[in-house]
Amino acid sequence: MGYADEQNEIYRRGTTGQRPKRPIDWRVLESQASQQLRPGPWGYIAGSAGREETNDANRTALSRVQIVPRMLRDVSTRNLERTVLGTRFPAPVFLSPIGVQTLAHPEGELASARAAASLGIPFTASTAGSHTLEAIAEAAGAAPRWYQLYWPKSRDLAASFIQRAEAAGYSALVVTLDTWLLGWRPRDLTEAFLPFLWGEGNINYFTDPVFRSKLERSPEDDPAGAIALFVREFSNPTVTWDDLEWLREQTSLPIVLKGIQHVDDARRAVDAGVESVFVSNHGGRQVDGAIGSLDALREISKAVGDQTELLFDSGIRGGADAVKALSLGARAVGIGRPFIWGLAVGGSDGVRDVIAHLLAELDLTLALTGHADIDELDASAVKLSDAH
Amino acid sequence: MGYADEQNEIYRRGTTGQRPKRPIDWRVLESQASQQLRPGPWGYIAGSAGREETNDANRTALSRVQIVPRMLRDVSTRNLERTVLGTRFPAPVFLSPIGVQTLAHPEGELASARAAASLGIPFTASTAGSHTLEAIAEAAGAAPRWYQLYWPKSRDLAASFIQRAEAAGYSALVVTLDTWLLGWRPRDLTEAFLPFLWGEGNINYFTDPVFRSKLERSPEDDPAGAIALFVREFSNPTVTWDDLEWLREQTSLPIVLKGIQHVDDARRAVDAGVESVFVSNHGGRQVDGAIGSLDALREISKAVGDQTELLFDSGIRGGADAVKALSLGARAVGIGRPFIWGLAVGGSDGVRDVIAHLLAELDLTLALTGHADIDELDASAVKLSDAH
Amino acid sequence: MGYADEQNEIYRRGTTGQRPKRPIDWRVLESQASQQLRPGPWGYIAGSAGREETNDANRTALSRVQIVPRMLRDVSTRNLERTVLGTRFPAPVFLSPIGVQTLAHPEGELASARAAASLGIPFTASTAGSHTLEAIAEAAGAAPRWYQLYWPKSRDLAASFIQRAEAAGYSALVVTLDTWLLGWRPRDLTEAFLPFLWGEGNINYFTDPVFRSKLERSPEDDPAGAIALFVREFSNPTVTWDDLEWLREQTSLPIVLKGIQHVDDARRAVDAGVESVFVSNHGGRQVDGAIGSLDALREISKAVGDQTELLFDSGIRGGADAVKALSLGARAVGIGRPFIWGLAVGGSDGVRDVIAHLLAELDLTLALTGHADIDELDASAVKLSDAH
Amino acid sequence: MGYADEQNEIYRRGTTGQRPKRPIDWRVLESQASQQLRPGPWGYIAGSAGREETNDANRTALSRVQIVPRMLRDVSTRNLERTVLGTRFPAPVFLSPIGVQTLAHPEGELASARAAASLGIPFTASTAGSHTLEAIAEAAGAAPRWYQLYWPKSRDLAASFIQRAEAAGYSALVVTLDTWLLGWRPRDLTEAFLPFLWGEGNINYFTDPVFRSKLERSPEDDPAGAIALFVREFSNPTVTWDDLEWLREQTSLPIVLKGIQHVDDARRAVDAGVESVFVSNHGGRQVDGAIGSLDALREISKAVGDQTELLFDSGIRGGADAVKALSLGARAVGIGRPFIWGLAVGGSDGVRDVIAHLLAELDLTLALTGHADIDELDASAVKLSDAH
Repeated sequence: MGYADEQNEIYRRGTTGQRPKRPIDWRVLESQASQQLRPGPWGYIAGSAGREETNDANRTALSRVQIVPRMLRDVSTRNLERTVLGTRFPAPVFLSPIGVQTLAHPEGELASARAAASLGIPFTASTAGSHTLEAIAEAAGAAPRWYQLYWPKSRDLAASFIQRAEAAGYSALVVTLDTWLLGWRPRDLTEAFLPFLWGEGNINYFTDPVFRSKLERSPEDDPAGAIALFVREFSNPTVTWDDLEWLREQTSLPIVLKGIQHVDDARRAVDAGVESVFVSNHGGRQVDGAIGSLDALREISKAVGDQTELLFDSGIRGGADAVKALSLGARAVGIGRPFIWGLAVGGSDGVRDVIAHLLAELDLTLALTGHADIDELDASAVKLSDAH
Repeated sequence: MGYADEQNEIYRRGTTGQRPKRPIDWRVLESQASQQLRPGPWGYIAGSAGREETNDANRTALSRVQIVPRMLRDVSTRNLERTVLGTRFPAPVFLSPIGVQTLAHPEGELASARAAASLGIPFTASTAGSHTLEAIAEAAGAAPRWYQLYWPKSRDLAASFIQRAEAAGYSALVVTLDTWLLGWRPRDLTEAFLPFLWGEGNINYFTDPVFRSKLERSPEDDPAGAIALFVREFSNPTVTWDDLEWLREQTSLPIVLKGIQHVDDARRAVDAGVESVFVSNHGGRQVDGAIGSLDALREISKAVGDQTELLFDSGIRGGADAVKALSLGARAVGIGRPFIWGLAVGGSDGVRDVIAHLLAELDLTLALTGHADIDELDASAVKLSDAH
Repeated sequence: MGYADEQNEIYRRGTTGQRPKRPIDWRVLESQASQQLRPGPWGYIAGSAGREETNDANRTALSRVQIVPRMLRDVSTRNLERTVLGTRFPAPVFLSPIGVQTLAHPEGELASARAAASLGIPFTASTAGSHTLEAIAEAAGAAPRWYQLYWPKSRDLAASFIQRAEAAGYSALVVTLDTWLLGWRPRDLTEAFLPFLWGEGNINYFTDPVFRSKLERSPEDDPAGAIALFVREFSNPTVTWDDLEWLREQTSLPIVLKGIQHVDDARRAVDAGVESVFVSNHGGRQVDGAIGSLDALREISKAVGDQTELLFDSGIRGGADAVKALSLGARAVGIGRPFIWGLAVGGSDGVRDVIAHLLAELDLTLALTGHADIDELDASAVKLSDAH
Repeated sequence: MGYADEQNEIYRRGTTGQRPKRPIDWRVLESQASQQLRPGPWGYIAGSAGREETNDANRTALSRVQIVPRMLRDVSTRNLERTVLGTRFPAPVFLSPIGVQTLAHPEGELASARAAASLGIPFTASTAGSHTLEAIAEAAGAAPRWYQLYWPKSRDLAASFIQRAEAAGYSALVVTLDTWLLGWRPRDLTEAFLPFLWGEGNINYFTDPVFRSKLERSPEDDPAGAIALFVREFSNPTVTWDDLEWLREQTSLPIVLKGIQHVDDARRAVDAGVESVFVSNHGGRQVDGAIGSLDALREISKAVGDQTELLFDSGIRGGADAVKALSLGARAVGIGRPFIWGLAVGGSDGVRDVIAHLLAELDLTLALTGHADIDELDASAVKLSDAH
């Protein structure tokens, strides 16, 4: 049994007259999700910074890298397992951190986390989630999970978040570096839609003892005051490389620096002793007109790929994309918007489908390109097209 | 009389008020075929793997290679004849193997084979055809034909297929290397449409004595059991280069390895002593995000073009495309989906038109670029555009 | 007074409430022409070979070359005059040969020739015109004009055409090399539309004494027989470089070889002693999948630009395009389809507008890029964009 | 408080149910402006020369340059201040000169100048404005402002314009070099729309004492005569580098040469001792088929970036674009059409929004790419994409 059996299962059910409940083609899935949500939430999920050219660049960077399949190798059994940040996972795929998932579905992160857990894939709980990290941990059950930190202004609050994550059994700390301020997002600005100002996505703050201790009145009694403190705490653009030392002291969890795009920053992260560099441009949501994330990965991988664990996201839209990023040095690959489309359309089952379909295509693509083990993928499996 | 006369004939009939019965422009033909078929069959024919980017890459690779016409050479008579795999053919063009052609037209392979035979062009019978290879051979009559092998799990079954092909007068064995598993095809998965699970396209198996001997009850009495065995036999991803020795012993037919894209695989095929390397990515149906097939041909041709017979398909959409592939080293060029469009719209006559029109454009393009013989085409006839 | 005054005149008339009678934007003009003509004639005018990719390549080749304007040079008076093939013309622009212009407008070539003459621009009369070369010469009056030869199979007929052209005062012989056979043109084939088989565009043949002497019955009495002879005479793919010697002996007119795309053919033409190489791919009408004509000019100009007069057409759609081709070595630039659009929409006045507007934009572009004389344009005025 | 607070403010108002009054996405703003204006004025504002390929090239040049964000630098306070042409401005952004702004809104330049002044951003008053430079100066109040000179044929008139500008407190003289003649603009020609021939945009001439002294009757009594003189004075294509010496003697204001695209012209401008080279192609309105303006900036900046103050415009459509131009050596960046869209849709407030939104995105992009000061931006902040 491998992930490719998902395909067999769909065809098998077809013989009994059952068609897939949800779109197989992610472009259709995206379109269905867009029709289901109101403009505010949809814009928040779909939107990117500025003219959204970074988003396009993410796709272009992926399309330019092309797979060169190999033939006549025994690929009857494939091993997709990989150890990432000290944990053995069944496949090198994870759910990237996304906040306020209740925008897409009432169950939000709980549904997504359950889906990831059912497949053994790490869910990354965002500090800006609409469920507490503790509730998400409970939903994930025994499955490994990671915690994404929006590092707040007050170090005691940051420390509290980290301690809670450790206590709740999260096994890695993913620190987002590219969002000390929100990017200029025309879709959200058009709707004047920022859920956090309505008290959505603040629950990790409002339930935090350190956060509460900074308030005169409780968030329940004075929501406006709590939101105001959230706003002050969230924006924290003074953090520099020097602060990593303090962070290191707070936790023994592996530290992942998320949002790195420049090779010198990657080198510095390695020097700083963090366990992982997460090459990402936040799905193009922060800086418009920036390089495609896979272009960054290509360079960073060459420079420090053997000295750190590289994670990657921004633009992945199928198993073939995952093969490309893995070939270019990503230890694991994150899915972002696509799983939210699944969540919007089908709740936890929808998320599960998105993951399972990506894994099926990944498994098949491995096999059909002559690789029996995910670890066989390296830069020789792909080629940079000169036709773009 | 040459193939270009097809053009004269169309114009001549125009003077008597007759317009062509079927679309001349293949884009219109494709669109007409799509309207005629139900979504399942159409999706099966038209679909590719994943986001269908390999399919796009096939076209891009062809468009980037541009012909540089030569003037003032005597091209009054053109010779398109070429010896391919030991047989002299009137033109270096063949029908690529396509399964279950009854999806497009009730007569399926019989109609296509008759059309190919009428023009002396080899038809390649697929193991997954909807008519037996013997029936197709009968339809083809005296015309040369090739047999495509989906190499099954059981060697005795593989041997049986080969023996039947030999007995039925097939003159080459085209072994598909890229489909030990089906690619992830969103169109088919959307419809949960896999004809083989309905008993379509299994007839070469169900009629095979070795296959039947493996069943407790006959396919007629127990279709489900027969289909289950088909599924087990079809998937055979353990085959490696080492198995070619066994294959070689089974037949004296020339062996063609179909699906090669990497230059090292091409070299290895030559070392393995097969007669032909068939550069193909299955029309983009197996691996998404892969290189364009003509990009592969360009490299492979340089490396082993003088040591083996190179066949080519994936993306050919007209006579100019054929000239490009032939110039870059293909000994013969295969047509895939376009002839199925013809089949859907006009049965055997429709297939004949597609072939005849490609040959006419090929003949005219030869003449108009200054070549009197197909053998004059080489890499100097084309140029890699730097404008893509 | 310069060509730019056309612009002033349009604005001046605007102050009295008059708007231009015909579209200024050629894309609108093309669209209006397409709506005015029946599908057969429109397809014949608009269509190209095969998938029409050569036509696209013509535009891409032009778009990739970009002008780099220079400032602060005295451009108050511009000189666009140029000697081409021994005649001094007011501007380096001509009408390319196009057959059967009555497809676009009842007056056909007579209207176009009058328009060209009114601006002193050479009209090129096609052998396949729908008016005799003598009638066209009369319409052109004192204005210089060129004769395009479809070199027929019978040398005595060819000689007759040439003698008639000389007698009618044509000052150059433009020999088309790329149309010994018609290209594969899906639009015409769809309509089974070839005007010559209906007796349109054959008048230069039917009125020719040598042609008539080869017929048993006159074209008036036996049109079918005359058309049959036309078909036999038209197709003449045996002509080679060696035949140029004979041609040379027939005339003292400058000989222009039209349709050259390969640098070696250009060199050979120079060696053969012809006066001019006409870089053209017949507007993409003959060979699909070929290089863009300006790409050919770039190479040919470097190789033989100083040894022969280079003419250029295929893709010119405005004055900026003309500046590009002139900068890259064209001595004069031909307009094709655009003047037929003008003809279709406005008869002779429509053709005049097309020419005048191109000249105005050419004049303005010269001035605005810092050139007071057309002869100042060279390769340093443009740059090859690396962004395509 | 920084420019990014504009974003916060929009979201804050969102919590009270207020959505932005005008489109945030400039593509929507453009579309709304186009619907609001009549075809003549809209065509004048939106149109470019010829096929408008230079306009496309401006965007392509900007898209090809991609930002590479840096992480973990203290960007809590950003300094966008920059000294340009001797004046300290709060940000390196200005409004490019645009004539006859009453085409977009009754208040025209007065509204735009007030908006610029409210943000401390220089407004550039065009000689072809629809308000006198004195009235605009009054509207701008204490805010710095620049004067754009269409250098007229009569030196005494030129001198008069310059003296008026000095008297009205303009602090720089922006001399346009690329418009001695109007480009060929199909949209305006289609409408036969040139506002200056109706007496719009001539007010700086009609009110000028030197201009009036050249007329027999006043513009009020004989508008046609005044317009005729305007036409004669406006067109002045004899100006060359040698004339700069005279210009230099007329004023102690810094001289900016606007419209330079060639590196040799930039070098010559430096040699001529002007204070600033303004790299611009007039938004593609003058020469079609020309290079993208940012491509010009890249080269010019390398050659003379350290010897002069480089200004830049043509194609800027957001804060990310501004970061690119600034990184490549622009000392300040001009906005053109976008502020006119704002003017058309919302008058002075609309202009203010356009500027404020660009500044907000610029500020955020600075922060999110790791820059605390605009002066930290250099070529290392961007990368030339090889994917176009």
